[in-house]
Amino acid sequence: MSVLVVGSVALDTVETPFDKRDDILGGSASFFSVVSSLITDVRLVAVVGQDFPEEHVALMADKGVDLAGLTREEGRTFRWSGRYLDNMVDRVTLDTQLNVFEKFDPELPASYRDTEFVFLANIHPALQLKVLGQVAAPKLVCLDTMNFWIEGEREALGEVLGKVQALLINDEELRLLSGEHNMVRGAAAVRAMGPEVLVVKRGDAGALLFDDHGMFCVPAVPLDNVVDPTGAGDTFAGGFVSYLTHHGEVTPVTLRQAMVYGSVTASYCVEDFSLDRLRSLTRDEVLERCERFKGLTQFEDVVLKS
Amino acid sequence: MSVLVVGSVALDTVETPFDKRDDILGGSASFFSVVSSLITDVRLVAVVGQDFPEEHVALMADKGVDLAGLTREEGRTFRWSGRYLDNMVDRVTLDTQLNVFEKFDPELPASYRDTEFVFLANIHPALQLKVLGQVAAPKLVCLDTMNFWIEGEREALGEVLGKVQALLINDEELRLLSGEHNMVRGAAAVRAMGPEVLVVKRGDAGALLFDDHGMFCVPAVPLDNVVDPTGAGDTFAGGFVSYLTHHGEVTPVTLRQAMVYGSVTASYCVEDFSLDRLRSLTRDEVLERCERFKGLTQFEDVVLKS
Repeated sequence: MSVLVVGSVALDTVETPFDKRDDILGGSASFFSVVSSLITDVRLVAVVGQDFPEEHVALMADKGVDLAGLTREEGRTFRWSGRYLDNMVDRVTLDTQLNVFEKFDPELPASYRDTEFVFLANIHPALQLKVLGQVAAPKLVCLDTMNFWIEGEREALGEVLGKVQALLINDEELRLLSGEHNMVRGAAAVRAMGPEVLVVKRGDAGALLFDDHGMFCVPAVPLDNVVDPTGAGDTFAGGFVSYLTHHGEVTPVTLRQAMVYGSVTASYCVEDFSLDRLRSLTRDEVLERCERFKGLTQFEDVVLKS
Repeated sequence: MSVLVVGSVALDTVETPFDKRDDILGGSASFFSVVSSLITDVRLVAVVGQDFPEEHVALMADKGVDLAGLTREEGRTFRWSGRYLDNMVDRVTLDTQLNVFEKFDPELPASYRDTEFVFLANIHPALQLKVLGQVAAPKLVCLDTMNFWIEGEREALGEVLGKVQALLINDEELRLLSGEHNMVRGAAAVRAMGPEVLVVKRGDAGALLFDDHGMFCVPAVPLDNVVDPTGAGDTFAGGFVSYLTHHGEVTPVTLRQAMVYGSVTASYCVEDFSLDRLRSLTRDEVLERCERFKGLTQFEDVVLKS
């Protein structure tokens, strides 16, 4: 089974209270693709500029990512720069340069059109719609978005929401999209817009799943050394969607397993800058941390004496 | 088995974006006592003023709380006033009047001195030490504190920390006490100060347990109607400590069950102002929500095809 991802491939400049890196590999589709490649075939749709280092292309090729949909255009690669605060959760964006991303007009290679599992990362909703229109018969379409589109492209976003099965956003985006401060009411409002499945990412507070079966919570794995949180949400999405793709079925059981798998893969992402930890990550390491994850969350039944 | 609690009994004025209440029953020891009374005997040590309504005393007496240690002094009852922000998590304190609490000098009734389970709620560490010195042979002493004592009474607090088995604080207090932004490293630093067991309360992000057995996370129960978060942390503490008291033993298993029980009882607290929901809460309701809590957190093993 294959998963198709459309999103950004970027060069990031990241500053933490402890360290700084310039022009490192970033972008939602990069994190998503590399973590997904661990357990499923990946078809990438993205654009880079003339300055994009060949070594990053080679990394994705090494991971078996299908690059037929990766185009290289005149100009510079999309760049993002940000600084994390002392809590290593909150951050300020210092600079965003769209560059070649500004004229991104995704055209799917013919070989991609039969893909059944699709992840539309955070790009203009009109482009998300365009990609979706080129997929013949998707089985599961998952969507990400951000405050910029929620505020400025409400109509196009509403159209995409009506065509996807799952939405993965953070808690602030949920509040903005639903107009509700309460997350449970906000989730109900957003699910009424289309997606049966809603995943709310909450950074180091973990993530929540809302589906027809109810609610489900996973913690973020507590780590003693967070190096760079950039890409954690995209890695979570990659883990989540690739797990469903790997198993080829979307059920209350696989959705909950996918939440755990997403949280565990995201915990590896933050252990180093860029994709430096993900690139060496193995299935056995992920499975081992999934096993330890049970100790984080499992308990014996609460009982009371009469 | 009995639990002894020393802390505040207060009159709160609470403002939310939706409603406001004046001079309602509050205080750490009030929330703690009433929720604990569901499953264990409670011995209360606190002080109120001449203005404290008799109906609140009657409520605690009705719940079987031992009030031999509740004194009524000349002057007004401790008062706290605060306003919650739109997210119903963050709040600003508008006013604090210590009143009779300023000269609080807890003297344990002789009948309290054999208590084995003790909760020292958030009061001056010198008073916490004084209470502890009057308990003959405590089996489990749990402690709460706050930024004010962490910053201003470091030495006395350090002495208490060396004498307790468990500390329950929030994430900001953990950062302040440990000097570490990273929670896992902060937890290790704080446990090295004395308490083997550390519980970190994170509001609507749930709570974390650190003990010799490892880490354990519980979510806050997602609710569609949070009326007043005041007292949720004290109710969590009451649920946690009373569960351990009820079972009379502190093991990795009972500690984890107590975390769930604490989270569930706290979820009832926030459903109404003051103790209005807790006062009618039944064991069956708590057990039913504990059962539903399993659905929030349990999953089948993550598996990968070869």
